[in-house]
Amino acid sequence: MSMEEAAHRVEPEAGIEPGSEPDVEPEPGTVRPGGRTARVRAAVLRATGDALAEHGFAQLDLADIARRAEVGKTTVYRRWGTVAGLVADLLVDMAEQSLPRTETGSLLADLTANARLVQRTLSDPRQGALFKAVLAAATCDPRTAEALHRFYDTRVGEWAPCVEEAVERGELPPGTDAREVIRAVSAPLYYRLLTSPAPLDEAAADRAANAAVSAARAGVYQR
Amino acid sequence: MSMEEAAHRVEPEAGIEPGSEPDVEPEPGTVRPGGRTARVRAAVLRATGDALAEHGFAQLDLADIARRAEVGKTTVYRRWGTVAGLVADLLVDMAEQSLPRTETGSLLADLTANARLVQRTLSDPRQGALFKAVLAAATCDPRTAEALHRFYDTRVGEWAPCVEEAVERGELPPGTDAREVIRAVSAPLYYRLLTSPAPLDEAAADRAANAAVSAARAGVYQR
Repeated sequence: MSMEEAAHRVEPEAGIEPGSEPDVEPEPGTVRPGGRTARVRAAVLRATGDALAEHGFAQLDLADIARRAEVGKTTVYRRWGTVAGLVADLLVDMAEQSLPRTETGSLLADLTANARLVQRTLSDPRQGALFKAVLAAATCDPRTAEALHRFYDTRVGEWAPCVEEAVERGELPPGTDAREVIRAVSAPLYYRLLTSPAPLDEAAADRAANAAVSAARAGVYQR
Repeated sequence: MSMEEAAHRVEPEAGIEPGSEPDVEPEPGTVRPGGRTARVRAAVLRATGDALAEHGFAQLDLADIARRAEVGKTTVYRRWGTVAGLVADLLVDMAEQSLPRTETGSLLADLTANARLVQRTLSDPRQGALFKAVLAAATCDPRTAEALHRFYDTRVGEWAPCVEEAVERGELPPGTDAREVIRAVSAPLYYRLLTSPAPLDEAAADRAANAAVSAARAGVYQR
């Protein structure tokens, strides 16, 4: 991993770093099947993430992305067509790179790990700016919104088993909507990111996890 | 109020309808002090809200706003200068029009009223689109972000006494952070608006209020 990639990456388990495929500059013998096509996609999506984080989505421009990625403009236009198509593919990549959930055997510990992962991601300067940019882009384009919904659907689905297992262990009432509990963990962190100048600290993450567990125990998320 | 204004207005207590000053087309004798300046501002802010709701903020254009508001382009450029300046003033107007909180004497009933107000506002086609647009605009411009933060600060401050009074009544533990409880009511509704295609229904609002009350009772929001 180059220094620049290392600087961009919050930490490995964040699992939502877009376009960070290690075959952008492959070591000899490390090129995976897919080869050039995969490398071009990785370079273009990394450039898209960089541009979004730096300038927001309103400034996004396919020619600029091609320049940043050192890829021919024609390739970018032919493969992604529009800025919306590019951001949608970035979100597909982000969903694919979402890493497995934590499994501690305790609901509160699992959800605290989840909340801190979201908090670290959103409070990282590049990642926070990138998430703001894709949320903004989704408000302007239905295709981007659909891709964003799929990204969150994948992420929520990855963590829902923490709640399902807590129900099986008897930690939570039967019929608890696992996905709704996972959404409840993220919601206050995103709300703060978008509506408040207050920094997103670990205390906010722990509070979000505690609140979701308290409400779930009280049966608020029972179907 | 014209039919068009009536169609735009969700219901009076929503209290966050921008640019709906009744003196856009004043009845004789009803023009308040401020007169023409206030009328121009109301017309321009209404046009801004309409344009944001229809096309999102990326398409916003001062000349188009002036046309819609039937106001001279020079006036709009001189008074607001930029699109960011215009959206910031719209948010000031939205904060000014935020109406008083409900007072039922019960925490759950107060917070349910708040949650349903947010839910009705965000699920209204015009208002929902407008809120998405100003949230997106704030991600691209620091001045808009500051105005958005002030809007939410005002709104949260308006409802915080529901929680403070519940602490005084002994419904909640001492030291409960009232503003954080109010934010917890809104957060899942905004999160769903931005990240999911699921409709924002009354059940979601009631769940948000119940979750905030359960967590607050459990001491999650104690400082």
